[in-house]
Amino acid sequence: MSQVRVAIVGGSGYTAGELLRLLLFHPQVEIAQVASSSHAGQYVHSLHPNLRKLCGLRLCHYDDLSTCDVIFLCMPHGTAMQAIERYRSLAPVVIDLSADFRLRSPDLYLRWYGKEHSQPELLAQAVYGLPELHRQELREAALISGTGCMATAAILGLAPLYRAGLVEQRLPLVVDAKVGSSAAGATPGPGSHHPDRSGAVRSFQPTGHRHSAELIQELGALAGGSWQQTLAFSATAVELVRGVLITAQVFLNTDLDERALWRLYREAYRDEPFIRLVKERSGVYRYPEPKILAGSNYCDIGFELDPSQRRLVVMAALDNLMKGAAGNAVQALNCRFGWNETLGLTFPGLHPI
Amino acid sequence: MSQVRVAIVGGSGYTAGELLRLLLFHPQVEIAQVASSSHAGQYVHSLHPNLRKLCGLRLCHYDDLSTCDVIFLCMPHGTAMQAIERYRSLAPVVIDLSADFRLRSPDLYLRWYGKEHSQPELLAQAVYGLPELHRQELREAALISGTGCMATAAILGLAPLYRAGLVEQRLPLVVDAKVGSSAAGATPGPGSHHPDRSGAVRSFQPTGHRHSAELIQELGALAGGSWQQTLAFSATAVELVRGVLITAQVFLNTDLDERALWRLYREAYRDEPFIRLVKERSGVYRYPEPKILAGSNYCDIGFELDPSQRRLVVMAALDNLMKGAAGNAVQALNCRFGWNETLGLTFPGLHPI
Amino acid sequence: MSQVRVAIVGGSGYTAGELLRLLLFHPQVEIAQVASSSHAGQYVHSLHPNLRKLCGLRLCHYDDLSTCDVIFLCMPHGTAMQAIERYRSLAPVVIDLSADFRLRSPDLYLRWYGKEHSQPELLAQAVYGLPELHRQELREAALISGTGCMATAAILGLAPLYRAGLVEQRLPLVVDAKVGSSAAGATPGPGSHHPDRSGAVRSFQPTGHRHSAELIQELGALAGGSWQQTLAFSATAVELVRGVLITAQVFLNTDLDERALWRLYREAYRDEPFIRLVKERSGVYRYPEPKILAGSNYCDIGFELDPSQRRLVVMAALDNLMKGAAGNAVQALNCRFGWNETLGLTFPGLHPI
Amino acid sequence: MSQVRVAIVGGSGYTAGELLRLLLFHPQVEIAQVASSSHAGQYVHSLHPNLRKLCGLRLCHYDDLSTCDVIFLCMPHGTAMQAIERYRSLAPVVIDLSADFRLRSPDLYLRWYGKEHSQPELLAQAVYGLPELHRQELREAALISGTGCMATAAILGLAPLYRAGLVEQRLPLVVDAKVGSSAAGATPGPGSHHPDRSGAVRSFQPTGHRHSAELIQELGALAGGSWQQTLAFSATAVELVRGVLITAQVFLNTDLDERALWRLYREAYRDEPFIRLVKERSGVYRYPEPKILAGSNYCDIGFELDPSQRRLVVMAALDNLMKGAAGNAVQALNCRFGWNETLGLTFPGLHPI
Repeated sequence: MSQVRVAIVGGSGYTAGELLRLLLFHPQVEIAQVASSSHAGQYVHSLHPNLRKLCGLRLCHYDDLSTCDVIFLCMPHGTAMQAIERYRSLAPVVIDLSADFRLRSPDLYLRWYGKEHSQPELLAQAVYGLPELHRQELREAALISGTGCMATAAILGLAPLYRAGLVEQRLPLVVDAKVGSSAAGATPGPGSHHPDRSGAVRSFQPTGHRHSAELIQELGALAGGSWQQTLAFSATAVELVRGVLITAQVFLNTDLDERALWRLYREAYRDEPFIRLVKERSGVYRYPEPKILAGSNYCDIGFELDPSQRRLVVMAALDNLMKGAAGNAVQALNCRFGWNETLGLTFPGLHPI
Repeated sequence: MSQVRVAIVGGSGYTAGELLRLLLFHPQVEIAQVASSSHAGQYVHSLHPNLRKLCGLRLCHYDDLSTCDVIFLCMPHGTAMQAIERYRSLAPVVIDLSADFRLRSPDLYLRWYGKEHSQPELLAQAVYGLPELHRQELREAALISGTGCMATAAILGLAPLYRAGLVEQRLPLVVDAKVGSSAAGATPGPGSHHPDRSGAVRSFQPTGHRHSAELIQELGALAGGSWQQTLAFSATAVELVRGVLITAQVFLNTDLDERALWRLYREAYRDEPFIRLVKERSGVYRYPEPKILAGSNYCDIGFELDPSQRRLVVMAALDNLMKGAAGNAVQALNCRFGWNETLGLTFPGLHPI
Repeated sequence: MSQVRVAIVGGSGYTAGELLRLLLFHPQVEIAQVASSSHAGQYVHSLHPNLRKLCGLRLCHYDDLSTCDVIFLCMPHGTAMQAIERYRSLAPVVIDLSADFRLRSPDLYLRWYGKEHSQPELLAQAVYGLPELHRQELREAALISGTGCMATAAILGLAPLYRAGLVEQRLPLVVDAKVGSSAAGATPGPGSHHPDRSGAVRSFQPTGHRHSAELIQELGALAGGSWQQTLAFSATAVELVRGVLITAQVFLNTDLDERALWRLYREAYRDEPFIRLVKERSGVYRYPEPKILAGSNYCDIGFELDPSQRRLVVMAALDNLMKGAAGNAVQALNCRFGWNETLGLTFPGLHPI
Repeated sequence: MSQVRVAIVGGSGYTAGELLRLLLFHPQVEIAQVASSSHAGQYVHSLHPNLRKLCGLRLCHYDDLSTCDVIFLCMPHGTAMQAIERYRSLAPVVIDLSADFRLRSPDLYLRWYGKEHSQPELLAQAVYGLPELHRQELREAALISGTGCMATAAILGLAPLYRAGLVEQRLPLVVDAKVGSSAAGATPGPGSHHPDRSGAVRSFQPTGHRHSAELIQELGALAGGSWQQTLAFSATAVELVRGVLITAQVFLNTDLDERALWRLYREAYRDEPFIRLVKERSGVYRYPEPKILAGSNYCDIGFELDPSQRRLVVMAALDNLMKGAAGNAVQALNCRFGWNETLGLTFPGLHPI
């Protein structure tokens, strides 16, 4: 079978670098072009030094993009939608890793992004690119959106409960997300200045985080209708380059013991190649830990029950550049073309690291 | 005025080291003895290398302790209560930094510590050593307990709300605590092994954390009675040596705007030397950040309101060895002797660090 | 072709964990057994949590080892040599990752390890397992030794100069090595306790480091005879889990410009799959940087000349668990069996990380 | 006695922030003005958040500076010399923390800074502000220069050897410096971007580092004449915000044992309040370690001898913002005014941190 020809737009960022790392070793893919508005002409490896000796490509101008089979868009939020028709004319499949096409509803977009979406009719066509929830739609999708890194962890961690209707909706869902510095991107600034960012435990979005909208959309759909619950989502930047851990507090509407919950999760994720349930009685790694997931596409999920309160603490960890961005996008690509979903994604993560 | 003579028991740990650092420069205190079961005979500076050239003392055996004015107990939880009568016979004021005398109720102790307290009658006499809440009682106290580092941050962050009766008690109080590695003490083990602990975002106590009991006791008292609310307290170890940040989600029982909340907090803490309200419109340090508090006795408190949900996110940061342990104990000592509460505690913290 | 059956002895350590990670994905290898004296009976993934869902093996007792094609020894220094005959009777190829068989001369061993070697006759038969220097001998070797992580970086960085006879031997060779915490192994202790190890810049072996002996042996051989030069090797532990950077100061015996040096290095390493020359005019990664090598088998080498002093600063970086241990051992295995040397070793490292 | 009135120019940087922290608590000093070209009008604590609640000053324009007793210049290198006459007209004592007036010789300046000095006649008048070497001259100085952070560590570590004439000058002096990120200043850029800087072991100046010139000047003077030796100075950025460790390799011209060296150092530094000799037989902190010096003004010095090579490894550690910049400048101020040198400088550093 001939290779699928792929172009990457916005090639200087971290998500693009991660895509390049993955696709260079993907057995079904050929990287045709990598475009960058700011670094055209430079070698790819001058921006992504881990790819030295592995990638001889140079970045091209956006204007020089040719037709191909798939285009990945790795541009800042709000940019992809401006030129989406052009990219759709260049390739039959567009995978946009920005936040532009994550939400199905223009109203939801307006509420959380504070402005009208410029392509509201396209929102309905796009598929939220999370294979665990949208595998069937991905097989035929022409426009696939990436997923928010913290949203991905929270949705995967909570989906089995919402699908089974086990959540007490009169009580709030509280999601506390911890995230590493790479999630803020490759552009230096005061917030990423090492003397200030190193060792930080920085509340950067106590209320109003946009990933909330993805939870409302996806968990709401699983719960069978529109979202009614109070959602309290807060995010804190911690000392880590790659990684997300979400700690979710959810209250059940019925008495369940840990075994029943374990069975529920196991059944929900039994066949998923990139979900691991982590729940051990002892040891340092008895709950999900993002640090050992760097470079891997796993989302590790665990939980602990406080039965007296019907309170369940759900923890989910992933690498924000992998399962939270580029890795998940490659998994969606694999879905889209009917390949084994693990192609190009078998790196297991390192320990220690 | 002559110096107050102080002894420290359990001198090899981090809390003792921090007490020594503070008391060596305290203008009213003389360090008479430092006892250690495991390191008797060694120089203090061999365990606390920052005190080289500053402290010529050697550690003595517990048996060699003489009478003095104040004894600080820095032993592991469960140890102080075993020999508390002996220490009380050696000094008229005992300040116990372990968890042994934090709770007033033997029942509450039993519920959270899983065993009967060996000195239940003493529990009622001890004073919870948080000057911001118990300044009057501290002035006459013979037995002062230290306070849990995460509990201190949470209680100080939430006290104005509970005292004013503004919390909707039918909804849960969720406290997510992030904490550095020094909180786990000076003894090496698998959990503190650097290759595993470095860069960790480790859920170590999703449910059942004992500091919950201190919130229940102290916030319950402020609210005017027994605790009725659901408390969801979870703790995560992050990459940091010193520091605690708590992110609390609390729901108000009335509509309040940010200005009213600001006024409430400002009035509550106007005269407190070690509470700073941190809430800026922009910048990297616009919320409380533990990293710039290392070595200082401040508890920095901030909040953000989501008015549509009557949801308030309260953040509070401190150094777990300072306002969360030794610094707070010195402040309590200053209270006890009627000194200016800031004696020996003026170090402002470093930036950058 | 049928799989080569491999056993790993000393399976709980970091080197064994890394070997397992590599060999699980190696297309020519089947992992037959993993033995551990201390953890027999436990699942491999309970010690190496990155291998969850990937490895169903349990650790066996040393006594339960059967015959196989290759045995990797991952035991502490001084242990392998005690039972080496037994391991050699179980498999025709033994690869010992400890320091026991790195030196060819019993005298050199005695001088640097402070005791007599228990198997001096075997020292002469063993091959120093660095493919870049001993590729031919590895093809027939029955006993292959691993290489010291810092020694590997220094030897690879300096080999072209010594082989070409360009070093002024009347002046000292100074090697300053920086190394991460995983090099000290998986056993917790005071030196690895996170509050003390985090952020450390710790001189741990200013003089007398045993890796010096490997430089003396290998660079001395390249220089065509016995070592005459003063070698000043010092090692400093820095904040990093994986990684080694050596900064070597060497003085040339003739005037050379950077282009001539560049040509020398390029010719020396042109065909080496795991050596990259790193020397860029600008940018953050213009010299070798260990942090982007975590998990990769590359040794990145760069240099800078001070022509007025005939001084050359050579920098070489690697991952101590990969090119400095397990990765290099797999490369030696690939040599030994005539496979492509990159089998199982293509992971390029992450950026950012 | 009335307070000495001090102004700080270049108030937004890290050195200025550290000066402010120190001078706010200095019993003899009043901070009169803090000027900033870029942040005039802002509160000091908005740039230096550790000074919240401690400092009510706002930054003023350079043009608004009035006369005072002492001006500290904290501007970028090359800036102070442009307007030095103006600052000297405003205050009888100017302490310049940039590199502009560190060297006495215009030739030495030209060689290392690559351009002519604009005020060559002033170079001869300025005093290199290291009290341990220039205490007498400081007492009368009108223009005091700060000292390079790495140079300070190296000079203090090596001074006793050079003064005693014990160094073999035909062999090179090799200084390998490790340094934290705050030494690169408060301005964000690609080199300080957290995902790239975190965990870095980055060679940033293998040859040609300007601090070399300070060693040549100061150690050369101690050795009694002009510098003849080969100096190999290399610098590596490591994961640390504050701190410098230098590892110096020096060869002695005579046989000395460790006791004789110990005596030499002890006599050299016996009365120095900020030099500690660190050399213990065991333990984690047996050599100088910068991490426990954050915020303190100590320079910790240790050494290890390889007698067979007459090789001495000298290690010296300090906080680059303290003894390497602001702390040392305050010590020089104390000298200048005849105060106890430790005024405002007693903070001992933290452990753990």
